[in-house]
Amino acid sequence: MTLCTPSPSVTEVAARKQRDRRENLRRFAFATDDSEPHVDIVNVQAYPQATLTEEQRAIVNCDATALVERIRKGVYTATQVLTATVTVAIRANDVTNCLTESCLRDSFERAEELDRHLKETGQVVGPLHGLPVSIKDHIKVKGLDTSTGYVAWAYRMVAENDALVVEILRKSGAIIYVKTQNPQTLLSLETNNNIYGRTVNPYNRKLTSGGSSGGEGALIACRGSFLGVGTDIGGSVRIPAAHCGLYGLKGSVARLPHSGLLGSHDGMDAIVGCVGPLARSARDLELFCKVMLNAKPWLFEPPLLEMPWKADVAQGRGLPEKLTIAILYDDGVVAPHPPITQAMKKYEAELKKAGHEVILWEPLDHLKGWELILRLYFLDGGKEYLEVLRAGAELPVPQTEWVLDQIQTPRPLTVDEIFRLNIERETFRAKALEHWNATKGPTGRPVDAILCPVAPTLAPPHDTTCWWAYSSHWNLLDLPAVAFPVGQYKASQFHLLGPFPHAPRNVIEERVAGQWDPSTYDNAPIGLQLVGRRHNEELLLGILKVVEKIVPPHVSGGWMAVKGTNGYT
Amino acid sequence: MTLCTPSPSVTEVAARKQRDRRENLRRFAFATDDSEPHVDIVNVQAYPQATLTEEQRAIVNCDATALVERIRKGVYTATQVLTATVTVAIRANDVTNCLTESCLRDSFERAEELDRHLKETGQVVGPLHGLPVSIKDHIKVKGLDTSTGYVAWAYRMVAENDALVVEILRKSGAIIYVKTQNPQTLLSLETNNNIYGRTVNPYNRKLTSGGSSGGEGALIACRGSFLGVGTDIGGSVRIPAAHCGLYGLKGSVARLPHSGLLGSHDGMDAIVGCVGPLARSARDLELFCKVMLNAKPWLFEPPLLEMPWKADVAQGRGLPEKLTIAILYDDGVVAPHPPITQAMKKYEAELKKAGHEVILWEPLDHLKGWELILRLYFLDGGKEYLEVLRAGAELPVPQTEWVLDQIQTPRPLTVDEIFRLNIERETFRAKALEHWNATKGPTGRPVDAILCPVAPTLAPPHDTTCWWAYSSHWNLLDLPAVAFPVGQYKASQFHLLGPFPHAPRNVIEERVAGQWDPSTYDNAPIGLQLVGRRHNEELLLGILKVVEKIVPPHVSGGWMAVKGTNGYT
Repeated sequence: MTLCTPSPSVTEVAARKQRDRRENLRRFAFATDDSEPHVDIVNVQAYPQATLTEEQRAIVNCDATALVERIRKGVYTATQVLTATVTVAIRANDVTNCLTESCLRDSFERAEELDRHLKETGQVVGPLHGLPVSIKDHIKVKGLDTSTGYVAWAYRMVAENDALVVEILRKSGAIIYVKTQNPQTLLSLETNNNIYGRTVNPYNRKLTSGGSSGGEGALIACRGSFLGVGTDIGGSVRIPAAHCGLYGLKGSVARLPHSGLLGSHDGMDAIVGCVGPLARSARDLELFCKVMLNAKPWLFEPPLLEMPWKADVAQGRGLPEKLTIAILYDDGVVAPHPPITQAMKKYEAELKKAGHEVILWEPLDHLKGWELILRLYFLDGGKEYLEVLRAGAELPVPQTEWVLDQIQTPRPLTVDEIFRLNIERETFRAKALEHWNATKGPTGRPVDAILCPVAPTLAPPHDTTCWWAYSSHWNLLDLPAVAFPVGQYKASQFHLLGPFPHAPRNVIEERVAGQWDPSTYDNAPIGLQLVGRRHNEELLLGILKVVEKIVPPHVSGGWMAVKGTNGYT
Repeated sequence: MTLCTPSPSVTEVAARKQRDRRENLRRFAFATDDSEPHVDIVNVQAYPQATLTEEQRAIVNCDATALVERIRKGVYTATQVLTATVTVAIRANDVTNCLTESCLRDSFERAEELDRHLKETGQVVGPLHGLPVSIKDHIKVKGLDTSTGYVAWAYRMVAENDALVVEILRKSGAIIYVKTQNPQTLLSLETNNNIYGRTVNPYNRKLTSGGSSGGEGALIACRGSFLGVGTDIGGSVRIPAAHCGLYGLKGSVARLPHSGLLGSHDGMDAIVGCVGPLARSARDLELFCKVMLNAKPWLFEPPLLEMPWKADVAQGRGLPEKLTIAILYDDGVVAPHPPITQAMKKYEAELKKAGHEVILWEPLDHLKGWELILRLYFLDGGKEYLEVLRAGAELPVPQTEWVLDQIQTPRPLTVDEIFRLNIERETFRAKALEHWNATKGPTGRPVDAILCPVAPTLAPPHDTTCWWAYSSHWNLLDLPAVAFPVGQYKASQFHLLGPFPHAPRNVIEERVAGQWDPSTYDNAPIGLQLVGRRHNEELLLGILKVVEKIVPPHVSGGWMAVKGTNGYT
């Protein structure tokens, strides 16, 4: 791999972008206290709320569903909500480096307009009236730059239009106020680039916030946003959700609006990503999907499926009384770290206790699947990534370097090779579908959902992510998958968990096993994943609802929850 | 283009295949009269019914819906039905060359089994109990060869399994008895190959039966089948339907089962074909779709959409009382021949009279669309087609030669070029969707459907088809489209129709205009096409139902209808 040495322009672009960000935000930094948490304090999750009033804390600790209800009822104004949210967002950026662009002046004008409208008419403009929503950097927001973590694109991608998802959000009353960090190339489960640098995990700054929607993860975890729009082609919504104690949904391809995004490999059909929400409650994921599909986006974006949102199914209609859940404890390649296994065991016991059926999911070719999706990611042998890096005279960040090192065929494939690869993908999918149909529970009915890890580790230390298949496997199969928070890891309790379960079976597992040091992950949220049948996003959320009735949701962070434990007040 | 000269093996393979066909059929040729119609008789549509009893004629002139109802009620047995159908099918093959493989022994065994089952249990095995269904050659039928019109594949592609569509048909009680002709390469709107030769139009043997499902077209038109399974990536269901006086549905990609097909370019994603039914009534198309989707094929074929069949919508539920239909009289490239324009005018008048709104459809870039889909067909520059032809040491038939001559880039595209082409396709689709949304009728509502030609001419003389875009345009846009019969052209009435409407605008139109000789098309059926919104197959059939209530369906052929006019009794 030949790469230019970094030219001075990289640091110039980065400095200018960071200065612009600071300037844009500073004008709206309402809090006067801009002290930084001591460098030794790793958990900074609650820090951004330090200067808030009690009412503001109550606001930012709502979920989106509660908040829009309160705005509608006049409990809070949109301006009040935005003020509290922006205060937290700016400080969240100070401690996690999660933001990129912002349009705060416009957003406050819109908040006032919405408040006026509600006051004068008694009506909300839509179901998200007054809700601040954050947007991942590579999704177009009219008038804002879309540098997407590439130096070459910085200041050159000012969007002339909103992406369809943004357009629908605005029409529904949402307020777009900030954009959030994504990594160089977007093909990374951490968030780092040469423009803004690295986004860190607010629960432990030594750990990644995940990626590629890692800016969203950090921001929402800090309560600097209620609902964020991410994208996922290998785990990029679910990984930051899991690492940051949030909910994240990756639907089936073409269910949610996906037009108006910038990124490499536009026009690549072989494996396609999805827009997905990150949020603080399961019902907020539902709210997002409902808003999107009630807007009939298929009338505006040709590839989208005309599949209206089945709200009643998401509410549980038609669910069998006795669910059959399969648990995937180990994908046969890399066993997850003990806290994750422990969490799954708890769910197994609780689900059984509640009368549901739980069986073991036999993993099917996860290593083969990983090798296959890697080849699908790199039809051009990595050419386009390298060209854009070269155009910006920038070096790959470590996780880019890692992913480019995974390329087996470092040249563009031929048409024949692409056709054969597509056939391999289809054969793989057909086999997996047969496997699902055959994996029956005691009722004789195929399983309703799979419960599994989102990743083999909790949020790992920076630049160490090396096994994607717990998330990417479901992209390869195009199955809907939802990450949800189930706990928070405390190093002080590590003796309960024991060592890595067995001798490593391969070099990847050796690396992951080597990372299991109980003290590393202090405060890291624990997330799990439910995977459903294709096109059954509603059913999947309906199942999650049942699961959360049995094991109540774990909310990491929040002001009161963290105040006593993170050393910062 | 360098091609081998045909080796003796081509004629050997062809002779052997034709002999096998004859042998397989002969054992079940119940009629003793095997006289051929005089060579001057062009309309041979009714000839295959000549030796039938009155009851048998009544049987083969039913549509599928009526027939399954009568079998269920015990009016006819499955064996009776199959006997009449096979008699006609064998003679249809004699006069049109429409068949390839057959499995008559098995089919009669199955018919007896079905009769026994009904007699013993009083129950049908499924909604198609006893219905003989014919299958296009390249669709796998267990135990039968799948030579697909390629010499190289003959005797080498005996199917180990049924295609999913065949499997569902069988489970629903249908009897698979014959396979039907498709052209060399499948990429042709006529039906000709070096194994069996050319399939001709039963209404006028000097004309093509259309393609690529041209064997189905000829067979069903002769009443040698009730329902046939074809495939369509550029018009291959609709063109033979229109040219043979039948109904043909091309749905949106991935609504109907599509696995288990042989053909070139397996693994090609850029433009995808569809399985579709050819039938003798609109309700039979509905029956086919209902059977397919009630079988939940998405549980067995990963790419399929989980979109259950909305039978009530197909029956008209939710249709606005006043439809808005747009008529596309001329695509701006090649105006259709006068009989087709005349037919559309009649529909315009009748629809208006019935109180519906009719507006003109402004064509959008049909030439550009044609050039685009051509490039999508030939990502590999035609390489795979030529390789298979070479492997069989066969020459391209004239229509293959014509289509290969359309290739602009006679080499495999690069990955970058493919990505750019996909973007072009998506941009084209987005523009077309916007165009549809903007094309409002007087109610202000976007149009419900487009009425347009299926082709610029009626069934043309052999080897002259040269403008696909009236059908392929809707494949490019992935919109559902249904061809339906609206009349039959009689040369004796040509003076009503006048000359070609204007001086040719381009070389293609010049060629098509030059074909307008009223005497050429004597007896050719006239078909039109309704095009709907993506994924709205049910609504489209619901609209067709309304249209057919206003202008009753035209059934070409049938014993009584043709007896007096075709010179053969």
